[in-house]
Amino acid sequence: MPRSWTHGREDDLAERFREVRALTDALAAPLSDADATVQSMPDASPAKWHLAHVSWFFETFVLRDHVPGYRPFDPHFAYLFNSYYEAEGPRHARPLRGMLTRPTLAEVCAYRRHVDEALMAAMGALPDEARMLVTLGLHHEQQHQELLLTDIQHLLSLNPLEPALFDAPSALPAPVPETLHWIEGREGLVEIGDDGRSGFAFDCEGPRHRTVLHPHALAHRAVTNGEWAGFIEDGGYRTPALWLDEGWAWVRAHDVEAPLYWKRTERGWTRFALDGRRPVNPAAPVTHISFYEADAYARWAGGRLPTEAEWESAAQNVSPVGGTQLDGAYCPRPRAAEGTPALTQMFGDVWEWTGSAYRPHPGFRPAEGAVGEYNGKFMSGQFVLKGGSCATPRGHVRASYRNFFHPHQRWQFTGLRLAKDL
Amino acid sequence: MPRSWTHGREDDLAERFREVRALTDALAAPLSDADATVQSMPDASPAKWHLAHVSWFFETFVLRDHVPGYRPFDPHFAYLFNSYYEAEGPRHARPLRGMLTRPTLAEVCAYRRHVDEALMAAMGALPDEARMLVTLGLHHEQQHQELLLTDIQHLLSLNPLEPALFDAPSALPAPVPETLHWIEGREGLVEIGDDGRSGFAFDCEGPRHRTVLHPHALAHRAVTNGEWAGFIEDGGYRTPALWLDEGWAWVRAHDVEAPLYWKRTERGWTRFALDGRRPVNPAAPVTHISFYEADAYARWAGGRLPTEAEWESAAQNVSPVGGTQLDGAYCPRPRAAEGTPALTQMFGDVWEWTGSAYRPHPGFRPAEGAVGEYNGKFMSGQFVLKGGSCATPRGHVRASYRNFFHPHQRWQFTGLRLAKDL
Amino acid sequence: MPRSWTHGREDDLAERFREVRALTDALAAPLSDADATVQSMPDASPAKWHLAHVSWFFETFVLRDHVPGYRPFDPHFAYLFNSYYEAEGPRHARPLRGMLTRPTLAEVCAYRRHVDEALMAAMGALPDEARMLVTLGLHHEQQHQELLLTDIQHLLSLNPLEPALFDAPSALPAPVPETLHWIEGREGLVEIGDDGRSGFAFDCEGPRHRTVLHPHALAHRAVTNGEWAGFIEDGGYRTPALWLDEGWAWVRAHDVEAPLYWKRTERGWTRFALDGRRPVNPAAPVTHISFYEADAYARWAGGRLPTEAEWESAAQNVSPVGGTQLDGAYCPRPRAAEGTPALTQMFGDVWEWTGSAYRPHPGFRPAEGAVGEYNGKFMSGQFVLKGGSCATPRGHVRASYRNFFHPHQRWQFTGLRLAKDL
Amino acid sequence: MPRSWTHGREDDLAERFREVRALTDALAAPLSDADATVQSMPDASPAKWHLAHVSWFFETFVLRDHVPGYRPFDPHFAYLFNSYYEAEGPRHARPLRGMLTRPTLAEVCAYRRHVDEALMAAMGALPDEARMLVTLGLHHEQQHQELLLTDIQHLLSLNPLEPALFDAPSALPAPVPETLHWIEGREGLVEIGDDGRSGFAFDCEGPRHRTVLHPHALAHRAVTNGEWAGFIEDGGYRTPALWLDEGWAWVRAHDVEAPLYWKRTERGWTRFALDGRRPVNPAAPVTHISFYEADAYARWAGGRLPTEAEWESAAQNVSPVGGTQLDGAYCPRPRAAEGTPALTQMFGDVWEWTGSAYRPHPGFRPAEGAVGEYNGKFMSGQFVLKGGSCATPRGHVRASYRNFFHPHQRWQFTGLRLAKDL
Repeated sequence: MPRSWTHGREDDLAERFREVRALTDALAAPLSDADATVQSMPDASPAKWHLAHVSWFFETFVLRDHVPGYRPFDPHFAYLFNSYYEAEGPRHARPLRGMLTRPTLAEVCAYRRHVDEALMAAMGALPDEARMLVTLGLHHEQQHQELLLTDIQHLLSLNPLEPALFDAPSALPAPVPETLHWIEGREGLVEIGDDGRSGFAFDCEGPRHRTVLHPHALAHRAVTNGEWAGFIEDGGYRTPALWLDEGWAWVRAHDVEAPLYWKRTERGWTRFALDGRRPVNPAAPVTHISFYEADAYARWAGGRLPTEAEWESAAQNVSPVGGTQLDGAYCPRPRAAEGTPALTQMFGDVWEWTGSAYRPHPGFRPAEGAVGEYNGKFMSGQFVLKGGSCATPRGHVRASYRNFFHPHQRWQFTGLRLAKDL
Repeated sequence: MPRSWTHGREDDLAERFREVRALTDALAAPLSDADATVQSMPDASPAKWHLAHVSWFFETFVLRDHVPGYRPFDPHFAYLFNSYYEAEGPRHARPLRGMLTRPTLAEVCAYRRHVDEALMAAMGALPDEARMLVTLGLHHEQQHQELLLTDIQHLLSLNPLEPALFDAPSALPAPVPETLHWIEGREGLVEIGDDGRSGFAFDCEGPRHRTVLHPHALAHRAVTNGEWAGFIEDGGYRTPALWLDEGWAWVRAHDVEAPLYWKRTERGWTRFALDGRRPVNPAAPVTHISFYEADAYARWAGGRLPTEAEWESAAQNVSPVGGTQLDGAYCPRPRAAEGTPALTQMFGDVWEWTGSAYRPHPGFRPAEGAVGEYNGKFMSGQFVLKGGSCATPRGHVRASYRNFFHPHQRWQFTGLRLAKDL
Repeated sequence: MPRSWTHGREDDLAERFREVRALTDALAAPLSDADATVQSMPDASPAKWHLAHVSWFFETFVLRDHVPGYRPFDPHFAYLFNSYYEAEGPRHARPLRGMLTRPTLAEVCAYRRHVDEALMAAMGALPDEARMLVTLGLHHEQQHQELLLTDIQHLLSLNPLEPALFDAPSALPAPVPETLHWIEGREGLVEIGDDGRSGFAFDCEGPRHRTVLHPHALAHRAVTNGEWAGFIEDGGYRTPALWLDEGWAWVRAHDVEAPLYWKRTERGWTRFALDGRRPVNPAAPVTHISFYEADAYARWAGGRLPTEAEWESAAQNVSPVGGTQLDGAYCPRPRAAEGTPALTQMFGDVWEWTGSAYRPHPGFRPAEGAVGEYNGKFMSGQFVLKGGSCATPRGHVRASYRNFFHPHQRWQFTGLRLAKDL
Repeated sequence: MPRSWTHGREDDLAERFREVRALTDALAAPLSDADATVQSMPDASPAKWHLAHVSWFFETFVLRDHVPGYRPFDPHFAYLFNSYYEAEGPRHARPLRGMLTRPTLAEVCAYRRHVDEALMAAMGALPDEARMLVTLGLHHEQQHQELLLTDIQHLLSLNPLEPALFDAPSALPAPVPETLHWIEGREGLVEIGDDGRSGFAFDCEGPRHRTVLHPHALAHRAVTNGEWAGFIEDGGYRTPALWLDEGWAWVRAHDVEAPLYWKRTERGWTRFALDGRRPVNPAAPVTHISFYEADAYARWAGGRLPTEAEWESAAQNVSPVGGTQLDGAYCPRPRAAEGTPALTQMFGDVWEWTGSAYRPHPGFRPAEGAVGEYNGKFMSGQFVLKGGSCATPRGHVRASYRNFFHPHQRWQFTGLRLAKDL
């Protein structure tokens, strides 16, 4: 990562646009044409596709719709780089994204510059609606920054050479493992959901609404790799009683024995990340686990996953600019030991699985127009994750933020924090 | 159905045992050995398997564990007829249940009598824990009564001859379609979940807990076949904007154009049920629809699905012994027109999809022992349905009852009731 | 088997019709309605389907086409029981044959009687073309007699109870294993293919034609179970160099370690057959092996599979009414030891895989009309097997007979005889 | 194609080595890193993989085994670039070849130079056995030259942009369609198979052996695109009676309506090739058809496919250095009209499907050592093709050459010539 990037300190949209776009370019800089082209699985997309798709978003919803006389870079790109917007017409099938050896990476970069220049030129004269779409597009691009990293990590992991994309961060002293403390949460009526005060929120984060919390406590930190190794040693992956029925079927169908990217060696567990294969750090938060694994671990540990409301209510008083985020490292780091037990690692480090299905908040209304397909139509079959990860751009996440994945997916930086009933 | 069966009027466990078991036998009476053996799909089970499995439940959890000297009918049956209880050891693979041409239907009936006699002989001396397991077993058997009917209906539907298992009920006058009325629901803090006053509840129905309802209203009746035909005519199955993303993928993958069992003929829509293929009754509740279809319909109609809490709160003041239930007919019937608009068809007729994922109530604890696998381990990937259907034994359902299926499944008697925000 | 049945001694078509039909009924006699209905895999068909399909063949190609005024038993049966005749219109999908719980077994038996009576009544007045179709239909029914047995064996094998359909034959003294002798074959120009002298042949057996044999020898008997056990012990299933590429992929994909129906127990290998699970007889021919296994064994043994021409040329001087055939037992038996080494076990016992792909003989022309779909359209992807098995009706097989299956299929009574170059 | 390359005029192995290797480099020259990396389907391999694999062949079987002190370029490459040689140990799974974004194309080219230099340095001192392996390696590399082109064509065809890799050849005058003439073939005993006089042959081409030809004739030229369009117009793809059973299933499963790469436009049929999408030339040989299609066409045309022996016998008197081969164009061209009817287009243009399964010639023995896995283990499930194509390096093909593919495969330059019985 060439330099720190902090969202929100600038209040000028053009400057934010420049910064977000530059970070994307920086993330893609180490990639070869081939690295940027191959699709490792249907869930993932090629880096080149991410680079182009986020540009298509600006080109379509801002330049085409709000800038008179704009000429698209290439009329075919609408077909190639629409992700899932049915209202925008037919599109290239998702599992075939990796077949696009052309346009080349260099051509996609030229496309990016074309869009950048057109948008920067038009920025001053954009109507408010278009400025809101630019803002949405920037948050959208930040989401793809994280996906770009997790997708390329997945691709490189399938190469027997296990190449490293970045140098390893300088070695950190491994902190002494810390006792887990329980932090009691609020009880009774609370409010969650976007309250309109964070400057930006996706449609699915609102509306603000009341809900009831029952007596509970949250762990003061995330579950660590060392604790996870204990779960493995105790036969966690071989004990059906710990698992949801679908989770157990998933474990058996895929012979799951450890988090994704872990391998057992003679010297202990190792993991693969963008800095290559290295020993697992026992003090760092466990990551690359599915909802099923998180749920089974919690049951083994005598707890449960937090609900979204419990997590969000607790996070409302925590600064979202903490933890390891995208300007730090390419994998979660151990937390610095602290004097007084308090909620830590709520933001950054790892996305925390909650026990809440991703369904609409009461009174939810999708955004108007094609961007209304952004969130609402994915509200089945997925679970909510909260808090961001080491690959989330700093400034992108907040308490009301709702990330969501299917329960078997684990190529994101997913982890967990324990909760329990009181 | 040979005779009416009403649960709950007897307070003698032995009498209830006798009645429930007799109803199962009556339901299976029209089946041939082959009808009772074939498995139409992995989701469904052969009737013979249902007949044996519910007996295995009593044999294992009551007779084996609580009746000294009991000798099992056949030691192989524990392997053949365990459904999914990991704690009870290995078992015959679910998709292969239809390969069991032996034991024959007659042998399975003999197995039932063996268990009946042993349990009736032991009933007087059973300890309380065992009596609770007998009660659980009876409710379990009632669930399989409904599955037996829906599974055999699915099997017969795959036969090009479309044989009828039962005579058609006498023709009913088709009521005039009725305007849909909206009934305003409670707002603010309410209590839902089992309160221990209904005599029996499954573990997942509790604990009783507070939740918040936001301003809303429920339709006073279920959506009808006639209304559904309007959805079809309006292109509902061809309009992606109405569908959840996974729902739209499901529609395209399976070329879904209408509810399961519907066929378009020159004279209009027909449906298949246990009384054969007949014209769709426009005034009857629509049934055999997936969650995806219910959700898309609600969006088309300008509403949404009720949450479980909204539905349950409204149902708490409605008698659960209403509507068409198992002692009536083999498909939902139109409701009798009424003078004053009020909530109707809450119980019986069709299971109503809610918008709530099937997840634990706050503070949920599974039952102790092997029967703890009954509900809790299925709490991912499914949605809650409420209210029972025309194939639910009368007396089996209640406001807190939580049925659950995957969003694509529709061979049960599934329908919907609209809700809307106020 | 209730009585011996020898084909060919009667020259009266009506008498042969009566006998073949009666044997089919006898084979199905031990089956329950469920046994006769379930389909164990797409390759197999339910017994009830076999019983009806062979009747449909007579009803369609003889009664419908050649008997004025014939009224079909049930107009739906043409759809249900056509196997693969495109010229006869649409038909029930093969993998769904097991869904037909109706018509019942009793109804199918009534269908058989209806066809029998109509055909016997019409027999005397049938034109020659129709008499030829009756003859074809009888040979067709004999093929289904064998399939009925192998299909029901496969179905019963999937039942954990492993029920026996027939009593075991009386115990035979296990002969001393015999040295394998090599019998030199003809060399140079030979003639193979149907010569029109056997009274009946399928279209694919002709025309008679010349071919060249190169110096070779055939083993005087089939490979035995004892020899096969040696192949297993020597790591045959774990040595890729012995296998065709597709064979090795098949072994790994299905974890193949032994012939179908074999299980290793503490006391040695057992096999399942229609008389239940019993110890493998080391002197009996090995059976239920795929082409891939036969080919790998031959390579391991330093030989190869015979070509069809080598086998057929050698068999031309051997009586086809030998070996264990359908009037004997339900699995291959050891051969009686003999004084002089000579070709034995050519007919009956096990179908012998040849190294020849099932392709048309030079000058092959399919039969005229719908029955032209009988053989020719299957001439890709399959290998020729020769000689009949313990489940082939005596009198049905001859030197020119061409059986054919895909190289991975092994639920038939398939075995092998070694060949080698000289 | 930068320059003409003619095999065989040099008798110096080093010069031939240099020329073959240079042609491969020239073929890959227009490819980007991404073009060379992506795998379009499991049947195809990335260009980069072809480039490396053929080098691995020389490195392993020549340099490692016969050149003392040779140090491999990268010890991981044996794992990455072994194709299917079980004797050479474990290897990267074929369907994952496209995941190898590293090594880059530049690194693979460096690998090629490393091998080239080591082999050229050692060439003078190689023992005869190693020189034979070099020769084998060159023929092996020529096969991969053809695959490299067909695989990249398939990849580019999946890109909605349909990019052209090469300029179109200069427009050719479309010859007047020519009447099809029948050329009578030899009858009776003939010899086919490698006779050792062509300097090189793969093991599977021998041994030379006698076979019998029955009265027949071959078409004097290949079937043309224009004739194929007639088959389409006549409903060829909708008439089950024309198809083998497996072919018909394949047509329906994949909705096949025309050769691969054909699209119907308002102006008529177009095809995609390495020069982009262009109108179909009615006088050029049809290509990119499966065995199933070839077989169905022949039946429709009243003929059949030639047997391998018929084709090879006829080709023995035809010069194999004719037709459009790799130094010409990237798709088959029309033949120049000729005065006297004679066999033409036997070599080059399109591989011609025969009706012969790919099985061993009588007396076949695989080559010794690991290279014995080259041909023999693929002798099931495939059909023989003869004569080479427009993508076959000139000099590589001969009468006894046996190409082989599965009957559904059609991404090679596959076509057909009619035969008929006399």
